[in-house]
Amino acid sequence: MSTNLLFTSDLKQFLLNTVIFLSLSFFPLFNQATELRGTGDLGVVVERATGSILIVDTTTRTRLSKVEGFGDLSHASVVFSRDQRYAYVFGRDGGLTKVDILLGTIVNRVIQAGNSIGGAISQDGQLIAVSNYTPGGVKLFAADSLELLADLPTNSKVVGLVDAPGQRLVFSLFDTGEIWVADVHNPRQPEIKKFTNVGKQPYDALIFPNGRYYLAGLFGEKGFALLNLWQLEAGVKRILPDYGKGEETLPVYKMPHLEGCGITDDHLLVPAVGQHTVLVIDRHTWQQVKSIPVHGQPVFVMARPDGRQVWVNFALPDNDTVQVIDTTDFSIIKTLTPGKAVLHLEFTPRGEAVWVSVRDEDRLVVYNTETFESIATLPADKPSGIFFTARAHKIGQ
Amino acid sequence: MSTNLLFTSDLKQFLLNTVIFLSLSFFPLFNQATELRGTGDLGVVVERATGSILIVDTTTRTRLSKVEGFGDLSHASVVFSRDQRYAYVFGRDGGLTKVDILLGTIVNRVIQAGNSIGGAISQDGQLIAVSNYTPGGVKLFAADSLELLADLPTNSKVVGLVDAPGQRLVFSLFDTGEIWVADVHNPRQPEIKKFTNVGKQPYDALIFPNGRYYLAGLFGEKGFALLNLWQLEAGVKRILPDYGKGEETLPVYKMPHLEGCGITDDHLLVPAVGQHTVLVIDRHTWQQVKSIPVHGQPVFVMARPDGRQVWVNFALPDNDTVQVIDTTDFSIIKTLTPGKAVLHLEFTPRGEAVWVSVRDEDRLVVYNTETFESIATLPADKPSGIFFTARAHKIGQ
Repeated sequence: MSTNLLFTSDLKQFLLNTVIFLSLSFFPLFNQATELRGTGDLGVVVERATGSILIVDTTTRTRLSKVEGFGDLSHASVVFSRDQRYAYVFGRDGGLTKVDILLGTIVNRVIQAGNSIGGAISQDGQLIAVSNYTPGGVKLFAADSLELLADLPTNSKVVGLVDAPGQRLVFSLFDTGEIWVADVHNPRQPEIKKFTNVGKQPYDALIFPNGRYYLAGLFGEKGFALLNLWQLEAGVKRILPDYGKGEETLPVYKMPHLEGCGITDDHLLVPAVGQHTVLVIDRHTWQQVKSIPVHGQPVFVMARPDGRQVWVNFALPDNDTVQVIDTTDFSIIKTLTPGKAVLHLEFTPRGEAVWVSVRDEDRLVVYNTETFESIATLPADKPSGIFFTARAHKIGQ
Repeated sequence: MSTNLLFTSDLKQFLLNTVIFLSLSFFPLFNQATELRGTGDLGVVVERATGSILIVDTTTRTRLSKVEGFGDLSHASVVFSRDQRYAYVFGRDGGLTKVDILLGTIVNRVIQAGNSIGGAISQDGQLIAVSNYTPGGVKLFAADSLELLADLPTNSKVVGLVDAPGQRLVFSLFDTGEIWVADVHNPRQPEIKKFTNVGKQPYDALIFPNGRYYLAGLFGEKGFALLNLWQLEAGVKRILPDYGKGEETLPVYKMPHLEGCGITDDHLLVPAVGQHTVLVIDRHTWQQVKSIPVHGQPVFVMARPDGRQVWVNFALPDNDTVQVIDTTDFSIIKTLTPGKAVLHLEFTPRGEAVWVSVRDEDRLVVYNTETFESIATLPADKPSGIFFTARAHKIGQ
């Protein structure tokens, strides 16, 4: 009896242990299994004050998780792995952080410089590049391990870093007025072609959606520096050297951005520096064909994916407002006031909606781009940049 | 004793049952958990003879799974849900099948007509539209449940069905020479605008990447029908009515496709019907500016995402060949022979590689688009269409 009782008791204990063991073993799988989902409708929102990010779903318009521990995100940007599972977050403090957006966890983090401004992912998805202010330069990392592969010192703050077709990276040197094109087929020994005297103080740049043209905005003088990446031997061309001539240039409270600028079939819409103006450039002649008076100093001038609308936000003291320009006649068709300190906006991939970050009201507002109705509001802690995973598939993003 | 033995025996059985139950319960989770991954680098390859599909990974260039049970896929196409988890496969036999590409399983399947040719997903991702030959028309389904929402009979075979911005669908009627624009904001009661006398026998159509222009190719006569979706009141315009005038028109062994055609900054490259020619159209004047002699009758004329190259495959008897055109001077820079019966090709989202299906050699070949080297070969059973998930984010795909 007692033997059997013992045996029975042992069996009970064994059974209990088995159940506990199996439960514990499977627990992580349960978690993962609940996260089994596509990644095409995900996004990352930077919460600048708390050094955290939100992972959001653009289908249900909900927050999925909050991830902390990114350091100083007061000026941050994000790129995505080609499988859209990982986000690489570039922080102001030189932090490069790889996040698993399915699990909502930090996979790896390195502090790679003292003061960083942005980054890019190479065409093949294998390399992460970071542009730094202090010390000035670009560093290349392996996308999987974040191992440092190359360090390219520049003796200048680096701005406007983008990837380009042909496994290249292009960036501008603020202090020395240069544009560099780096061929990173061999990431440990990039081949660099330098263009000097491109203009005073390039402050940001953009690459066209097809990767053909690289355009840097100048802060130290009027105009833009244009490089045709299909024809490097033609060198850098200066365009719009006289825009806004005779107009008063106002103090610049926030540097405009060129990333995501308004490119349509025939035109390019860009923010004028220090003016309440959006400039319209003919894409074929590179001449200014119009200037559109707007509500304030434009910061982001971004085309809806179909190019029919361009949305603009503004610097202080007008940063509660967003204006929408119809690109067929360049009229302002809508003025919205999402709230205090509109810092960024991002369109859903097919353009039916746009997400707007309203920093000082701690929320994100989602608008229907056809009706201009607000269709969702989500809480967020001092939100700034919004980045959707569709960027993984786009040249220069 | 016997009671205890029985009890012990019961316990053993219970234990065994528990383990079996837990194993079985968790088995699907095991499968799912191993599939936890991003969906940005996935694709679907149609295996036409066996009614099956392959799910492939464009990062590792491998096959992930094979899914069977799709019926007749002799002319099939695929669209993706906006989260990139589900593929909707349109089969020749009227089958509409929803596939979970993470699990590699069929979620739902309806036979919705007798003879189907293609489909589309609406801008908001909520609707699946199918274009049918028999009976001619378009049907609308809920993307989640595949519930039928609307049936639009046309008295004609329907071709060239695409989605357009503004929650619209556009398609052409082969037999009656019409283009219809359906506003599907209310999917149970679409509002249709019809354009008649657009030309004889539109056989396929394309929408520009930004959704502005819809271009239908004509089979019953020369030329194309062009509709500006930003300006419907201007009606359909005919372009290139005289292309190839005086040249011999050959028997057409395979209808050319317009989907994915070669759109660059300034030009549109399209296959000529019944000629060994690719036509170059100026995007601004809509005039033919050049005709490029090529290896055979072109079928697909597809631009690499950056527009620098256009790749062309051919109808019988030249369907073992692919040619690459440089869009800066329209020269043929490469002629490749991937093998017998090249049916389709698809570029990776940033264009560094292209996947080619070689039906009669039962394989897929992946080329580096910069070096033209073959960088991978995968077995596939009579492969035809190749579709990557990045299409989820593109207008008209």
